[in-house]
Amino acid sequence: MPYSTEKPGPHSKIEEPDLIIEGGTLLTMVEGDPPRYNTSVHIKRDRVIGVIPSGAIPSPAGVEIIKAENCIVMPGLVNGHCHTAMTIFRGYADDLPLREWLFDKIFPAEAAHATPENIYWGALLGCLEMIASGTTSFMDGYFFQDETVRAVHESGLRALIGQGVIDFPAPGVSDPRENLRRAGEYIGRYLQFSDLITPGIFCHSPATCSAGTLVKAMDLCMENSLPMQIHLSETLDEVHEIIRKTGKRPVIYLNDLGVLNKNLIAAHAIHLSDEEFETISQKGARIVHVPESNMKLSSGVARVSDMLKIGIKPGIGTDGCASNNNLDLFKEMDTAAKLGKVFTGNPVNMSAATVLKMATSWGAESMGLKDMTGTIERGRKADIIVVDARSPHMTPLYNPVSSIVYSANGSDVKDVVVNGKVLMKDREFLTLDREEIMDRVRAISRGIK
Amino acid sequence: MPYSTEKPGPHSKIEEPDLIIEGGTLLTMVEGDPPRYNTSVHIKRDRVIGVIPSGAIPSPAGVEIIKAENCIVMPGLVNGHCHTAMTIFRGYADDLPLREWLFDKIFPAEAAHATPENIYWGALLGCLEMIASGTTSFMDGYFFQDETVRAVHESGLRALIGQGVIDFPAPGVSDPRENLRRAGEYIGRYLQFSDLITPGIFCHSPATCSAGTLVKAMDLCMENSLPMQIHLSETLDEVHEIIRKTGKRPVIYLNDLGVLNKNLIAAHAIHLSDEEFETISQKGARIVHVPESNMKLSSGVARVSDMLKIGIKPGIGTDGCASNNNLDLFKEMDTAAKLGKVFTGNPVNMSAATVLKMATSWGAESMGLKDMTGTIERGRKADIIVVDARSPHMTPLYNPVSSIVYSANGSDVKDVVVNGKVLMKDREFLTLDREEIMDRVRAISRGIK
Repeated sequence: MPYSTEKPGPHSKIEEPDLIIEGGTLLTMVEGDPPRYNTSVHIKRDRVIGVIPSGAIPSPAGVEIIKAENCIVMPGLVNGHCHTAMTIFRGYADDLPLREWLFDKIFPAEAAHATPENIYWGALLGCLEMIASGTTSFMDGYFFQDETVRAVHESGLRALIGQGVIDFPAPGVSDPRENLRRAGEYIGRYLQFSDLITPGIFCHSPATCSAGTLVKAMDLCMENSLPMQIHLSETLDEVHEIIRKTGKRPVIYLNDLGVLNKNLIAAHAIHLSDEEFETISQKGARIVHVPESNMKLSSGVARVSDMLKIGIKPGIGTDGCASNNNLDLFKEMDTAAKLGKVFTGNPVNMSAATVLKMATSWGAESMGLKDMTGTIERGRKADIIVVDARSPHMTPLYNPVSSIVYSANGSDVKDVVVNGKVLMKDREFLTLDREEIMDRVRAISRGIK
Repeated sequence: MPYSTEKPGPHSKIEEPDLIIEGGTLLTMVEGDPPRYNTSVHIKRDRVIGVIPSGAIPSPAGVEIIKAENCIVMPGLVNGHCHTAMTIFRGYADDLPLREWLFDKIFPAEAAHATPENIYWGALLGCLEMIASGTTSFMDGYFFQDETVRAVHESGLRALIGQGVIDFPAPGVSDPRENLRRAGEYIGRYLQFSDLITPGIFCHSPATCSAGTLVKAMDLCMENSLPMQIHLSETLDEVHEIIRKTGKRPVIYLNDLGVLNKNLIAAHAIHLSDEEFETISQKGARIVHVPESNMKLSSGVARVSDMLKIGIKPGIGTDGCASNNNLDLFKEMDTAAKLGKVFTGNPVNMSAATVLKMATSWGAESMGLKDMTGTIERGRKADIIVVDARSPHMTPLYNPVSSIVYSANGSDVKDVVVNGKVLMKDREFLTLDREEIMDRVRAISRGIK
């Protein structure tokens, strides 16, 4: 077992790595595992083949080395909810009443500018930003998703990319009666496309999709063993609308429709009753906490500490750049911890360790990739980031988990590896053309008034 | 008037700058001033001598140029409340019940480790971090403040540095009966020391200082026209304690003592009644909002939107690194805006423009430096930062104010000028030895268990 955490035995056959992350403080995020110091993470092709003491085995000639001295080595972050291409609307509309923001600004801007071309460049910018801030996997829901798939594929990131389904005219689907057929065709195109990309359906919400649409969308997902994403109980208005229409609270309504199951990934989940929590927990549906967007739009504060008490393990997400306005999960973790404390009046709640799990192992679990990513251990996909801890705001370093959550920001990420491939090294992007992408999106933004 | 915002007239005598910040988008933070594009900020010695269109006048030979193309040029940020040297305790204790955090961890650690030597290096690290994240002025309260003065003086930052006064044994003042005499001597030593450093008194709180101490401390400050800082109504427990002891809410108690006036700078100000707001507004006392620390310690949420309605213009601060755990005002602004929205249920509240004023012009006003810093205009001290906007998370750029508050982080700051002197250029520190300071604080932290 030479590449386990034990020392190599005398008769072990040593598998040679082709990439080594050398030195630093390692957070494996395996449950119960303490931080490890001066380790080497060995990677072959797409997988971690071992975590061993630094220098225990001489590095083979020709192997690529990422130096992590004075750094924290950890699983790449998992962004549980975003609309990647909406980077094109970053900062376009802020500080407005919710209806004005949505109906006078965002919806018209999307109708006019969410074209395939713009979505491609917006998604590339989102990928660039996520790589730069240490996200290695994400869950996306939007329209014209062939373009998002194309962008993500070029970037080398891992993603669940859901085609938007809504019972209104939407970008690329002017006739809503076509929305499920189009989503089905989309799924067909990408089921076997790449190990890194999982297609899926993103049903906009229980208020904007009919019962029939929700049921058929979930059937389509179940047939293909794919996740279905949804916005759930983000605003009180929406909850009241569902109650008025169906006589039931949204989670109970979804459960009665048969769509509340392990394949459902529900983002926001703010205005939920205890009964709804219990139902979610029993059915194994996934929750993604989206604190910054919920704060910025005044939607409310999700009761994450209560979810944790009954065993729900939420992921965490940034939402799109029209309502945050960044894709930086380091900021999101910090905010989630602090918000959870002040909201419950208890500084013990939402510890750094908890929110870091939300952004790594639990995030991967929410995404349906529990045994694949979210931790660093032998056999897992090599989705790893190296965070520079030798900067004033990261000094001193008593506790690496606390430093990551409460002191770091996305710009501290030095190197990013996804599926064993280096996407960023010493902050240089290796798969994407940073300058071209920024220039293209700047040009697009000049047309958005 | 060649260096006003108007074009030079034919008979104007042109004053030659010795430093020019060239290009970019300028936020002067002068009330009502819109963003300006492609400007040049001309600086001579310690002051701004003009803001003119870029290239309108050829740059004199030998003048130092800071390039700000694709950047946002703005006043340096004002950190309204911190305990700079507490960087040595960054991440030492988190996620604990408040009393355990304070009495079992922070107070014993301070008693053992808040030595002059450690405070000097901790304050240097804090200065390094503030420069790196665009803070140019700050208000500090702690003990052994000769050491903080020494560190800040070396850094080139502008600061109000209050000697801690508390009616308990404290670092450097083992006999509390000596606290005011020692504070008076401290003030005497630094009254004429430097244009950049203002001494003062930091009375710990109305609960930990007696009425006599509060009155005498304010007398001492008034005699010397200096500010007095205080922690005000940070926790409900403290408010109840004051009511129990005095029969009055804290602000009314302070007012009846005669210490509520323009010289008082009150940090936190969470649990305040409408009557207390009115009293503060009438007396002109200053408030500093400290959202992240208040969230992390579950202290509560200050009613900033209500303060704004009656004309109070609060500053914003980070608090010390034991309760945040960073000195990054960019994160603090973002959190302040989002928290203010979700707390009031109104996304219009706490706009990006408002929180940016809190961190610049209003912060300077709170610090007693209204006509000196916090805006960029002719005659003001040159306290200016250049923020790199050409990065994925700052692209595109519809509105520079929104970008600064909702998208930027401290690591985007490229250059820092204080009092006309360049403290950081292209992220290189020009006054402080980054590596030595971090090494020293790491060594100190190894002794803190």
